[in-house]
Amino acid sequence: MILENNKSEGMIRVPHEARNLIRTGQWKGQTSGVTPTYVQGNLVILPKEDAFDFLRYCFQNPKPCPVIGISEPGDPSLPMLGEDIDIRFDVPAYRVFEHGQMRKVERIDGVWRDDLVSFVIGCSFSFEGALQEVDLDVRHISQGRNVPMFKTNIETSPAGKFSGKLVVTMRPFKPIDAITSVQVSADFARVHGAPVHIGSAKDIGITDLSKPDFGDPVEIKDGELPVFWACGVTPQLAVRNANIPFFITHEPGCMLITDIKNSKMSLS
Amino acid sequence: MILENNKSEGMIRVPHEARNLIRTGQWKGQTSGVTPTYVQGNLVILPKEDAFDFLRYCFQNPKPCPVIGISEPGDPSLPMLGEDIDIRFDVPAYRVFEHGQMRKVERIDGVWRDDLVSFVIGCSFSFEGALQEVDLDVRHISQGRNVPMFKTNIETSPAGKFSGKLVVTMRPFKPIDAITSVQVSADFARVHGAPVHIGSAKDIGITDLSKPDFGDPVEIKDGELPVFWACGVTPQLAVRNANIPFFITHEPGCMLITDIKNSKMSLS
Repeated sequence: MILENNKSEGMIRVPHEARNLIRTGQWKGQTSGVTPTYVQGNLVILPKEDAFDFLRYCFQNPKPCPVIGISEPGDPSLPMLGEDIDIRFDVPAYRVFEHGQMRKVERIDGVWRDDLVSFVIGCSFSFEGALQEVDLDVRHISQGRNVPMFKTNIETSPAGKFSGKLVVTMRPFKPIDAITSVQVSADFARVHGAPVHIGSAKDIGITDLSKPDFGDPVEIKDGELPVFWACGVTPQLAVRNANIPFFITHEPGCMLITDIKNSKMSLS
Repeated sequence: MILENNKSEGMIRVPHEARNLIRTGQWKGQTSGVTPTYVQGNLVILPKEDAFDFLRYCFQNPKPCPVIGISEPGDPSLPMLGEDIDIRFDVPAYRVFEHGQMRKVERIDGVWRDDLVSFVIGCSFSFEGALQEVDLDVRHISQGRNVPMFKTNIETSPAGKFSGKLVVTMRPFKPIDAITSVQVSADFARVHGAPVHIGSAKDIGITDLSKPDFGDPVEIKDGELPVFWACGVTPQLAVRNANIPFFITHEPGCMLITDIKNSKMSLS
């Protein structure tokens, strides 16, 4: 397939080119590794009626919910993230939730409404490159897997209907590398920032690190500490918990590719 | 007066004590220098109807509008900023705007409504202590004045009804101190962060540095550069520009004193 070839040859380096391939149906599936120097975002689309409480939820929980873009109500563009973005077409796959029923679609122009607000939420992809730059072994990448994600027993701060447990990603490191990982990720204040926990998984309600709630398990070597970061799946759970009749998210792994460089996520 | 004595003796060091004095009418007027290690915030109170667009405005303009607290609609508490805060009483003076008419009051329980949402926005007081810690001469403090504030020709990013020019504060420094001021304030990502401009005032539409639009002029010594930071007066102007029929702000200088340490404003 042309696009897989493109990907394996590393040819999709420009976000608007990647979005155009997605928009025209030439690129389907996960976006991991596509335009790796640019920020990719999680997507939540809600009616305006619930938008304030959702944004308030994100504000109260900035580590799991680092909002990087918000649309005008009814407007499918997101000029702060990319001049040509049309959120109805530019994500490879969406999940549409209507009255608790979920269906997967490849475009959402058919269900678009004038009251819908798009929220784009940052993702840890943005600091993983920086971890690798300082020669840390980001295990799920070196093992070719999805990052392991776990539901913790930590309650997020509720806002209106939105509430739920904190979800975390886990990356194992030797102690000295764990310290470096704190330093490096802390610089990425705009996308999850420093870890939320280090060491004992039980402390945060995780009973078995080999059985993640989402994503894949990764190897933890002797002497390594698990390091836990707040995860962008948290707001997706909060939206599901809110029982609102209509909302849309991206299909996990099928992210919005933005024009923002990852390195900008470290600027104050 | 007991409280001025308290202040001059530096006795009000605990935020809840300061708020209690304000709440009971024993402390009136400006809060500059009260509990100096704790974050003080600008206040905007709006009906919920306009809250999403205002929060979106703040999100789109994070440097002038660093939101540090949001209330539940109708709820006068702000537990994330201080367990005992009651926003109807805990600011020394308020401005109530009704249909374009402004009046100054010392409490707002009489005009409180079930649909009001409080927004607390960070203030540059939080990094001025850090500038002084590294021996920078923060001129308006050494001259015992209010910080000079200027309306620029820079448009903020509009959201719904909310729009307007960026307002900046100005602090003059020798070039080497100007560089240090960038380093130090950049760490305070959660309260205005790094400056927005340095050097030529004309570049950002300021014609006379001796005539600030708000606050007091300060001396600029030979060889000093003016350094400009985004200012929390910006959202106040945006709210006035929005022509909404009812909103409340604090009286300039009469801030909300929170339980958050200034040093926390540098954590990601």
